[in-house]
Amino acid sequence: MSSTYGKNLKISIFGQSHSEAIGVTVDGIPAGIRIDMEELQSFMDRRAPGKSRYSTPRKEGDKPEFLSGLVNDTTCGAPLTAIIRNTNTRSSDYDNIRDIPRPGHADYTAHVKYGGFEDVSGGGHFSGRLTAPLCIAGGIAKQILSSQGIEISAFIKEIGGNSSDPFMAIDQAREKGDSVGGIIECVVTGLPAGVGNPMFDGVENNVAKAVFSIPAVKGIEFGRGFDAARICGSENNDEFYFDGDKVKTRTNNHGGILGGITSGMPVVFRVAIKPTPSISIEQNSISYSKGENAKLAVRGRHDPCIVPRAVPCVEAAAAIALYDLILDN
Amino acid sequence: MSSTYGKNLKISIFGQSHSEAIGVTVDGIPAGIRIDMEELQSFMDRRAPGKSRYSTPRKEGDKPEFLSGLVNDTTCGAPLTAIIRNTNTRSSDYDNIRDIPRPGHADYTAHVKYGGFEDVSGGGHFSGRLTAPLCIAGGIAKQILSSQGIEISAFIKEIGGNSSDPFMAIDQAREKGDSVGGIIECVVTGLPAGVGNPMFDGVENNVAKAVFSIPAVKGIEFGRGFDAARICGSENNDEFYFDGDKVKTRTNNHGGILGGITSGMPVVFRVAIKPTPSISIEQNSISYSKGENAKLAVRGRHDPCIVPRAVPCVEAAAAIALYDLILDN
Amino acid sequence: MSSTYGKNLKISIFGQSHSEAIGVTVDGIPAGIRIDMEELQSFMDRRAPGKSRYSTPRKEGDKPEFLSGLVNDTTCGAPLTAIIRNTNTRSSDYDNIRDIPRPGHADYTAHVKYGGFEDVSGGGHFSGRLTAPLCIAGGIAKQILSSQGIEISAFIKEIGGNSSDPFMAIDQAREKGDSVGGIIECVVTGLPAGVGNPMFDGVENNVAKAVFSIPAVKGIEFGRGFDAARICGSENNDEFYFDGDKVKTRTNNHGGILGGITSGMPVVFRVAIKPTPSISIEQNSISYSKGENAKLAVRGRHDPCIVPRAVPCVEAAAAIALYDLILDN
Amino acid sequence: MSSTYGKNLKISIFGQSHSEAIGVTVDGIPAGIRIDMEELQSFMDRRAPGKSRYSTPRKEGDKPEFLSGLVNDTTCGAPLTAIIRNTNTRSSDYDNIRDIPRPGHADYTAHVKYGGFEDVSGGGHFSGRLTAPLCIAGGIAKQILSSQGIEISAFIKEIGGNSSDPFMAIDQAREKGDSVGGIIECVVTGLPAGVGNPMFDGVENNVAKAVFSIPAVKGIEFGRGFDAARICGSENNDEFYFDGDKVKTRTNNHGGILGGITSGMPVVFRVAIKPTPSISIEQNSISYSKGENAKLAVRGRHDPCIVPRAVPCVEAAAAIALYDLILDN
Repeated sequence: MSSTYGKNLKISIFGQSHSEAIGVTVDGIPAGIRIDMEELQSFMDRRAPGKSRYSTPRKEGDKPEFLSGLVNDTTCGAPLTAIIRNTNTRSSDYDNIRDIPRPGHADYTAHVKYGGFEDVSGGGHFSGRLTAPLCIAGGIAKQILSSQGIEISAFIKEIGGNSSDPFMAIDQAREKGDSVGGIIECVVTGLPAGVGNPMFDGVENNVAKAVFSIPAVKGIEFGRGFDAARICGSENNDEFYFDGDKVKTRTNNHGGILGGITSGMPVVFRVAIKPTPSISIEQNSISYSKGENAKLAVRGRHDPCIVPRAVPCVEAAAAIALYDLILDN
Repeated sequence: MSSTYGKNLKISIFGQSHSEAIGVTVDGIPAGIRIDMEELQSFMDRRAPGKSRYSTPRKEGDKPEFLSGLVNDTTCGAPLTAIIRNTNTRSSDYDNIRDIPRPGHADYTAHVKYGGFEDVSGGGHFSGRLTAPLCIAGGIAKQILSSQGIEISAFIKEIGGNSSDPFMAIDQAREKGDSVGGIIECVVTGLPAGVGNPMFDGVENNVAKAVFSIPAVKGIEFGRGFDAARICGSENNDEFYFDGDKVKTRTNNHGGILGGITSGMPVVFRVAIKPTPSISIEQNSISYSKGENAKLAVRGRHDPCIVPRAVPCVEAAAAIALYDLILDN
Repeated sequence: MSSTYGKNLKISIFGQSHSEAIGVTVDGIPAGIRIDMEELQSFMDRRAPGKSRYSTPRKEGDKPEFLSGLVNDTTCGAPLTAIIRNTNTRSSDYDNIRDIPRPGHADYTAHVKYGGFEDVSGGGHFSGRLTAPLCIAGGIAKQILSSQGIEISAFIKEIGGNSSDPFMAIDQAREKGDSVGGIIECVVTGLPAGVGNPMFDGVENNVAKAVFSIPAVKGIEFGRGFDAARICGSENNDEFYFDGDKVKTRTNNHGGILGGITSGMPVVFRVAIKPTPSISIEQNSISYSKGENAKLAVRGRHDPCIVPRAVPCVEAAAAIALYDLILDN
Repeated sequence: MSSTYGKNLKISIFGQSHSEAIGVTVDGIPAGIRIDMEELQSFMDRRAPGKSRYSTPRKEGDKPEFLSGLVNDTTCGAPLTAIIRNTNTRSSDYDNIRDIPRPGHADYTAHVKYGGFEDVSGGGHFSGRLTAPLCIAGGIAKQILSSQGIEISAFIKEIGGNSSDPFMAIDQAREKGDSVGGIIECVVTGLPAGVGNPMFDGVENNVAKAVFSIPAVKGIEFGRGFDAARICGSENNDEFYFDGDKVKTRTNNHGGILGGITSGMPVVFRVAIKPTPSISIEQNSISYSKGENAKLAVRGRHDPCIVPRAVPCVEAAAAIALYDLILDN
């Protein structure tokens, strides 16, 4: 088991990069909620490939087809399923990785786990393409949260270590046939205090669990995060005060979460995205069939940097985790 | 719901800092496994308070009493429950926090969530004391993993930003009545390739979910982590090679995990621990009863730094998450 | 949440009677298992409508289209999703039930639960049509179990109280515009001893949970079932004996299950199917809009007896529950 | 895994008949609910042994000791754990069943599952004694439901096939050293319409899953149950009508559940309890050590009929399942 998430909002993602379709089932959305399909499409478009010179030229509409769960674009209480047909796939691009796993990808680990039966084309179920159904589910959750005054906004904090002109780092990487990663920050405003639970079921546990579903995420920190480990308690503690009737903290080093539960302050977290493993530069790897080391040149379409496209995915993962917790209350 | 974890290995933690007892039920350990009680006690002792001048003087045995699940120290297939009686509690120490929440603690968020019915004494269910049952469960999981050749070792990477002499930072903080946090690194060796699942159920998702159960953890990163976001793909990708029959990578920036699944290389992660929120310095907060801002001086016993005691907790959380995934295979 | 099942084998069913499609995602099947598509279709055909004069004349292929999870009909480890397009739907048949709930159907309870947003056409998500995706998932599980020597066979025990000539009862009901139910018995052979768990996670708990997903099921009994409540312990106890090396029981009143765990004897259970609630005879009901009692004549296509078509559904539910438990071991 | 139940109300039961203690953790009860301890004890007493000449003379207080989750008998939001110490155990009574499994008990199936490491004393984790913690959890859920106007009442319908004088059947069985089972009916009033979910997560699925945790239960039927399989749709369908503003049905063959969801009519179900497998009459079984057939005389304390003591257990299981579903809403 693997590709399911959630307790109250059950997400089940399916599909491989080159299977007939990819998609998602979302079970648990209350009945009577109207989905704004244009807004959802706009959200999907932020993730879609081929939208800018910074992303892969593979062009697909990524237009969800809803199979169930809606009557006149309004939830009816039944599980909601949407799919995206896979077109414009070129499986032959991936012939060589059947034998030679790409460094930094899941080719080798999937090979061991699934005994050679894994779908290697385009990375199979491990492809970044599977973030499209994540964005369908997350885009819907985001709309619902927004209608409750909860807004989720992620943005690029830095790329390739460059925070002042992050896109310059992408251009440099592309020229060299190399790639870069970056850091995305996500801010959630409007959350009431009291969302989340102690120990294993808090906001941090669940947002982390959801966010690590995005391939290439290698770290997450909340509030002041790793930097908090380097300052004193007197500096890190956020003092409470009354702003009228409302309890606030003067600083937000806790990132809106104490004991796994929201404080009413904005939830803030940052996510580390590793550089795209697909690069044009020849790399060393192994050959399963020959049982010896081998060279690999990765062909096929790939981004020099997936950070811009990962931004809506981070919002989607956060939306799913938070809405699931809110339904708990 | 809150304090349960796991799919195959079900952990259910209970208790408050000053309730009759704290404890844990572990459901899912195969029958016929002998628990080395001395080794478990040694593991518990690493977490226990009052062991060194760097930790709180509250002295408790933290000696688990096993109520069920064992016959002659050997698992019988039934759920295993162990408790630790709470003694040496001084609830009066916490009288003032009934009205004035401590900055950096869960007092306020618990107050909102539980409507004033929360157990405030000693932090209630949010107390660091609840890591003792985590260590019972984790210590047992660690023993079982060790018998399979899988070793989990965490250590202090830095305290208060100081990696060369971390304990000096604690001394400095204590003198000022302040506190410091730090970074713990955990290395897991001996894991076979193929453990973990794609998307929501990978090693990163689950270790993160488990580790964030430790109060004061504010960040986690795997392999090269946040640093990976600042280098090129050609540097971050770990090239595969054959070491005899065994597939390895020459570097381990991926931290032993690709696509959520172990590669056979050591799993490496780091955890950020915020400074202990309890400090002797007077702080600003609010008074619920007066509805106005208030001053708070935290009394009671507390550590200037909980990082040393958090080290076995990180091992425990990792052991639980990894053993749960291994039982999946 | 509602339409998901399982721990190791995760089933997520979606669709409404008249939505674009109905379908199922099955997550957790090991990689490398070849699905015999012809055999699956034969299994689906046993459930399909329009196959005999005893069932509704609505004719649909019920031919699953696989969207993901397979490479050359062989599982690849990724979640398997199959859909069936809904064609040949006549939603206008259901116009009157928007206002007047049908006795014996879920129209009224869905109306209360979903606040009028439920999809009423054809019974929406509550339609017997949703047993088609159940049979896709169950048919695959059945094939896998069969390859392990475990055979699941259900059959009609009686219809309308008639066990000697059950179909005669259907003819009689049809003539009157009425309907009849019946009892299905299911026998599972080849299960090893030791499958299932104590208390909440035994074979009985799980088979019951799965079987009650079939609309119209109102009871289940294992082994001698309700009849066991009327005999003495000395008669009901099944004595053990050695048949060569193998431990067996001379009788099988326990239905192959003791303490929730299989004994190695055939698992036997019976399921009560209520008469199809859709009948041509005019019935009393209420009108939501008028707030008063009303008469209802159910139009549309319906079976006088769904027992024959429920037989493969019972096998499917049992297959899912048992395979989920076997994956546990 | 085995002895956990629930999604919103998480129940985790632990202990063996002769372990240090048995108990239960209940996670998910809202904070601020006062438990009436006297009422709980009265409920426990209905299940306790040694209360009448119809039950085993083993006398234990079955007095729960609460370890956590309460402050002044009021829930504080943290998981609630209660234990009952095992005293008055005579493990030597069970020496012979280490080698010779008792017919009708879980001795043999546990032996296979746990490879001989199972705790055989008193039936270990499979003992009817484990229904005591079930009754702690269920008794609390029952109190909470009652405060919401939902009343759960089970009663003896028949014993040994005798519904007019059920206790006479017990006397007859005792005289012969034999045992009898029976049927318990449970009625739940006050449930609002709209509780429960379609398919796998309805009232029937969940009540059945919970009720089969009671050892000796071999069947369950809702509403008219198996009898519904023998009548016509026109008779079985319950017609709706307005009773003032309230929608009711004139009959209640559906047992208060349609499509898995409550209709507002009383939920009614019946449970088949097999005769106690422990009888004084000598039985045939096998010897593991000798690998041959053997005779067994069951010693130790046992009831000729556990039906009277099972009545509160059925209420407890129903309370847990229903409260879990209600927390969903």
